[in-house]
Amino acid sequence: MKSIDAQGYKLEVGSLLDSSLEKLLTEKYATSKKIILVDDNTYEFCLDALITNFEALKEAEVIILPVGEENKQLSIAQNVWEALTDYRVGRHDVIINLGGGLVTDMGGFIASCYKRGCDFINIPTSLLAMVDAAIGGKTGVNLEHYKNQIGVFAQPIALYIDPSFLETLPDEEYLSGYAEMIKHGIIKDEQLFQDVISCMNGNFEFNEELLIRCIEIKNNVVHEDPLEENVRKILNFGHTIGHVIEGHYMESGISHGHAVAIGMVMEAYLSMKLNGLSDVSYAFIESSILSFYTIPNFTDDDIQAMIEMLSNDKKNDANEIRCCLLEKIGECTYDHAVAESLFLETLMHFKNYQINMN
Amino acid sequence: MKSIDAQGYKLEVGSLLDSSLEKLLTEKYATSKKIILVDDNTYEFCLDALITNFEALKEAEVIILPVGEENKQLSIAQNVWEALTDYRVGRHDVIINLGGGLVTDMGGFIASCYKRGCDFINIPTSLLAMVDAAIGGKTGVNLEHYKNQIGVFAQPIALYIDPSFLETLPDEEYLSGYAEMIKHGIIKDEQLFQDVISCMNGNFEFNEELLIRCIEIKNNVVHEDPLEENVRKILNFGHTIGHVIEGHYMESGISHGHAVAIGMVMEAYLSMKLNGLSDVSYAFIESSILSFYTIPNFTDDDIQAMIEMLSNDKKNDANEIRCCLLEKIGECTYDHAVAESLFLETLMHFKNYQINMN
Repeated sequence: MKSIDAQGYKLEVGSLLDSSLEKLLTEKYATSKKIILVDDNTYEFCLDALITNFEALKEAEVIILPVGEENKQLSIAQNVWEALTDYRVGRHDVIINLGGGLVTDMGGFIASCYKRGCDFINIPTSLLAMVDAAIGGKTGVNLEHYKNQIGVFAQPIALYIDPSFLETLPDEEYLSGYAEMIKHGIIKDEQLFQDVISCMNGNFEFNEELLIRCIEIKNNVVHEDPLEENVRKILNFGHTIGHVIEGHYMESGISHGHAVAIGMVMEAYLSMKLNGLSDVSYAFIESSILSFYTIPNFTDDDIQAMIEMLSNDKKNDANEIRCCLLEKIGECTYDHAVAESLFLETLMHFKNYQINMN
Repeated sequence: MKSIDAQGYKLEVGSLLDSSLEKLLTEKYATSKKIILVDDNTYEFCLDALITNFEALKEAEVIILPVGEENKQLSIAQNVWEALTDYRVGRHDVIINLGGGLVTDMGGFIASCYKRGCDFINIPTSLLAMVDAAIGGKTGVNLEHYKNQIGVFAQPIALYIDPSFLETLPDEEYLSGYAEMIKHGIIKDEQLFQDVISCMNGNFEFNEELLIRCIEIKNNVVHEDPLEENVRKILNFGHTIGHVIEGHYMESGISHGHAVAIGMVMEAYLSMKLNGLSDVSYAFIESSILSFYTIPNFTDDDIQAMIEMLSNDKKNDANEIRCCLLEKIGECTYDHAVAESLFLETLMHFKNYQINMN
């Protein structure tokens, strides 16, 4: 059991059975109602392990969220709030989010706004949620195609990362999580980037030490700037373009990590044009990432729609599109105002690039 | 211009023209988009005064919320979030809530959840919002009939209380605001209670000093306990029963203050039964309040429905109905667990009481 110092809450990595969860449930929440939020998948593959091992959860109410980014909507949150009301959940009860990023993002938002704030515990089950989504207090739901447009910053009471849940994951989920691990390396730690790529090249053999290094990077950056006023912005590397790709291709089910991976290649390309990233570093990033993640075939209409969404990104300020750019691998800077025309040029470049590859 | 020390934000009472609003808009928000949230009434009666006097607001976008407690719903908040998205509002822009409690409650919630938090300024225009709703950081919307079931604690950047807006108010809105002024006296300051009642008996002649005394009580209590973990709970006096009356009679348009006034009489009755409030004090409270506010005619079905809602009050804990009770006028204690049967008995008492009066 590895305990990581997180501001104001418990963050533990290791088997749930060795964690402080049992104590928390039987002491702090001894008389509280417990609600477990799952999605269709974690209901099937993860819930039993939790309920079987924790007597205190035998009577818990279980609420199932529908899987899929297109269901990360206010209307679903409203259904859950109505269910919590029906279950007579009070503000001293506790909600346990058992699932991937959708469950921890939505569950955190649902708990934080229910009766102006109810405690929640995050137990991420996907690699993406373990290394990224469940850490750092960002909660929310999408509004139409705008990712996490509605949400709040709110920390869980505790965050338990148990790698044994990863055994339940399908391959594409692994790949989605690895994209954020790549990002943590690219922005902060070149050696980590190389180690993640080596691990992926070596058949993704799982490595808990790598997981912990990624968690520590995320946690440290968030700790330094919880409300994303300055340095935390570097965690958005790859996400300015990644979010619009994810939004635009939501119906075709592109994963968050896949979209961010492509976003990182494109933002690395912008970094080369604007921020002094060397050609060699760019080429290494491009070849490393594109050997695992493919770029969708953009039409001109697709590009037009994505440019439109870009101009409404949360990270913008005073009508400028703001973006993080690399200086070199392991060093990222933020608040670059990038002209819309350069994004257009970049998307066009990769449109042709894709055609050339085929 | 009276400046009151509020935790972390400006609270000013007096003419907007003498306030720091101009400076705020032209300095801190010089390059920000300004959005003004109003309701149908403040659009008609208050917006002009604001836009005419502040050059910086000439280009502001205006969003109109429909009046009526039954419209304080997530679906309306969602419409506003979509409009903000269409207007390309960013997290460094500012939302100005110009209206009564519905506008300041909903507007604060909308701003706090938009892109995980956008600044907002409260300019309350109703007496109720000036002495209560706009102060203290409670924001939210109703869920079905449950008042403010979904919300967050969030403070405005500034709160400007300009009594000249009161001239636009219809009488029943005045009466609604006076109920919260009565409450501030009953729970904290017997002299204030008597002064408010005297003012009401004297044709409600407006008195800015009385307004400021009420604002200071609310602000001081909130300052002491911003998240309602202990002493702030006394501000809920009258609201446990008041909220269910308001929720149950929402369609017939009972005002918040009217419902709270009746709630205060009933909770004073409970205080006499359970908490040592003297018969004389109870009688004074009852006669003072019921000479201005009438109790609806309850049927047994009404009572049953209200008891059902009571058991889901936000203030409950571990399945007990929690309530504030008076020890005497000016002294209120909190966290009393009151049996459901006693609420039933109280509602039955006032059912008969009403019939006897007619």
